[in-house]
Amino acid sequence: MRFTTLLACLLVSQVILAELRGTGDLGLIIEREPAAVQIINTSTQKTLSHIADLGDLSHASVVYSRDARYAFIFGRDGGLSKIDLLKDKIDQRIIQAGNSIGGAISQDGKLIAVSNYTPGGVKIFSSETLDLIADIPAIYANNKRSKVVGLVDAPGQKFIFSLFDANEIWVVDLNAVTKPKIQKFTNIGKQPYDALLSPDGRYYIAGLFADNGLALLDLWSPEKGVKRILPNYGKQDEKLPVYKMPHLEGWAAAGNLMFIPAIGQHEVLVIEQSTWQLIKRIPVLGQPVFVMARPDGRQVWVNFAFPDNSHLQIIDVKDLSIEKHLQPGKAVLHMEFTPRGEHVWVSARDDNHVLVYDTQNFKELARLPAKKPSGIFFSNRAHKMGL
Amino acid sequence: MRFTTLLACLLVSQVILAELRGTGDLGLIIEREPAAVQIINTSTQKTLSHIADLGDLSHASVVYSRDARYAFIFGRDGGLSKIDLLKDKIDQRIIQAGNSIGGAISQDGKLIAVSNYTPGGVKIFSSETLDLIADIPAIYANNKRSKVVGLVDAPGQKFIFSLFDANEIWVVDLNAVTKPKIQKFTNIGKQPYDALLSPDGRYYIAGLFADNGLALLDLWSPEKGVKRILPNYGKQDEKLPVYKMPHLEGWAAAGNLMFIPAIGQHEVLVIEQSTWQLIKRIPVLGQPVFVMARPDGRQVWVNFAFPDNSHLQIIDVKDLSIEKHLQPGKAVLHMEFTPRGEHVWVSARDDNHVLVYDTQNFKELARLPAKKPSGIFFSNRAHKMGL
Repeated sequence: MRFTTLLACLLVSQVILAELRGTGDLGLIIEREPAAVQIINTSTQKTLSHIADLGDLSHASVVYSRDARYAFIFGRDGGLSKIDLLKDKIDQRIIQAGNSIGGAISQDGKLIAVSNYTPGGVKIFSSETLDLIADIPAIYANNKRSKVVGLVDAPGQKFIFSLFDANEIWVVDLNAVTKPKIQKFTNIGKQPYDALLSPDGRYYIAGLFADNGLALLDLWSPEKGVKRILPNYGKQDEKLPVYKMPHLEGWAAAGNLMFIPAIGQHEVLVIEQSTWQLIKRIPVLGQPVFVMARPDGRQVWVNFAFPDNSHLQIIDVKDLSIEKHLQPGKAVLHMEFTPRGEHVWVSARDDNHVLVYDTQNFKELARLPAKKPSGIFFSNRAHKMGL
Repeated sequence: MRFTTLLACLLVSQVILAELRGTGDLGLIIEREPAAVQIINTSTQKTLSHIADLGDLSHASVVYSRDARYAFIFGRDGGLSKIDLLKDKIDQRIIQAGNSIGGAISQDGKLIAVSNYTPGGVKIFSSETLDLIADIPAIYANNKRSKVVGLVDAPGQKFIFSLFDANEIWVVDLNAVTKPKIQKFTNIGKQPYDALLSPDGRYYIAGLFADNGLALLDLWSPEKGVKRILPNYGKQDEKLPVYKMPHLEGWAAAGNLMFIPAIGQHEVLVIEQSTWQLIKRIPVLGQPVFVMARPDGRQVWVNFAFPDNSHLQIIDVKDLSIEKHLQPGKAVLHMEFTPRGEHVWVSARDDNHVLVYDTQNFKELARLPAKKPSGIFFSNRAHKMGL
């Protein structure tokens, strides 16, 4: 082999060798304008690459394949993009609907579900090929189609979602993938607008936009139906205009307590999970949007709607009081904890940066430039239920 | 470039390209004789490679780097081996003591701690280089050295362990890595023999070989000291010889309940976590060894000591009764759930195979040959606390 050839060969190998990376400490930062993502590494706290041409990412969310190699991005424009974290490129991309708001990946990792506003329903795709496998239109009375919200995966190869216009919750069993079994719960409360699954996959809880309380489905006892919890919490409490709907996926279960952003109120609600009773209202400085527990459950971090969206408050779960107040920048949109909770990454959209904090001493560890950053999603989500 | 050269070059690249793999669905199976590991993939349910020359793996355990690329194996002979899951080879290997029984990785992923019997103590190594960073001899009264057991990592860059001969629990803070701060709890009960941390990193619980009850340390309130729980549970209950000590790391916290193997009894104890009261004794067919909750907490899988070690029983957590009985083979030593719980891998040492079961319908999905397989450890452990 000639020297120049050998050199070329080595260079090719080097390029490929450079891409040998574990996928456990990777993540994506969504950049809204122009729509792009950064692949980041949470160990080095650095950006590895930028990937553009991803359509409209104004309300994007992300799930990961079970090998944590691929990220699936659900765009507002109905785009479903599959990103290869090892090759730093788009693996596949399709436009699957006109207006979509979220998605989930099945327990076995083989199916991607997307919830759509237009046309209302859920579509199921192969995570390998993005081929359409099943189409579940959200049809209710008089052949109308409902917007679908609050889509999550659940144990037993299920997806669960809520029909905003139909006041229903549907549980879809995909063990026989081409013949989805659908269990429908009707009259669950008016206008479910978002939902979450408890981290153990047992409880599905939907927020109700036009009704009091929350709708609770115990998946261990579906025969008992959907019941209403916190019946005294609801729209009649509302004294302030709602600047931004709280994200119920951001609800935080810490040990035996749940922390919920009160809609339209400057409060975080604390609910005791075994009785589903409200045990405390914690005053905070604005309308909470994301209320997220550190993985060990000792802290709960809260961001806010406009005009308080340059702030973060941190609740100490031990005594249910505010422990710390931070100002990471303008328009703090999202937070993501590292898997074992030592750090948190925070996006400040209008300051065009993402900050990394030490959650123990609240020191700023790193500052990454990003263009209008919003959601931050780490690859350990691959191993979690109910996202 | 000549054709043969090009071909060689492509072959080299192919080999390297073939190694592009996400690390989220990998794992290790420990083979005892001869001491080796299999790197396996939980999506394809196949063995990717074998790695030999790993010393004595008769009581080996494994932790993972935060990028899930490297596995650290703690061997009975004091060997500490770092395996590269992408290159299918030993990255580094040292003999760090004469007799070791376990290890842990720090919250930030930078430190590997190993607990040793001989000489009694804990050594801290760099996870990158395996260089020794700190040596913490387990010295107590009269300058004696104790065996160390029950080593776990905890939030706040801590390690916690118990001194079998000294009746102590130590909490080591490694925020200043070369100056470990040690908090010692003395007279915690006689002969702590193993311990576990609750999945949220809050409660450290040690089993007592020569005392009644269990020693509990609430890490949110260390100033309250160690307290005794289940004071009526202990050696005086014992009516049967103990064939194998239960592994307390296998204790299972499912929602608000903990499931514990009763030492020397044919029972699994169910403890209510908010009150630390025993609420039920579930009769099982032998002396339980590992009592492990499926990740969603709905099932608890139990294996047994000799002579019942060809059996598995599965508890339905909803009604706390035995739901299923399986016989995977001779000498069932360990179980590991896939991260989202759809499958479980079970090692049957004396039948030289590992079985994969669907946890929903209990069907056997795959059978992998393995030489005297014992522990099975999946890479999502990278993201968990208290291992």
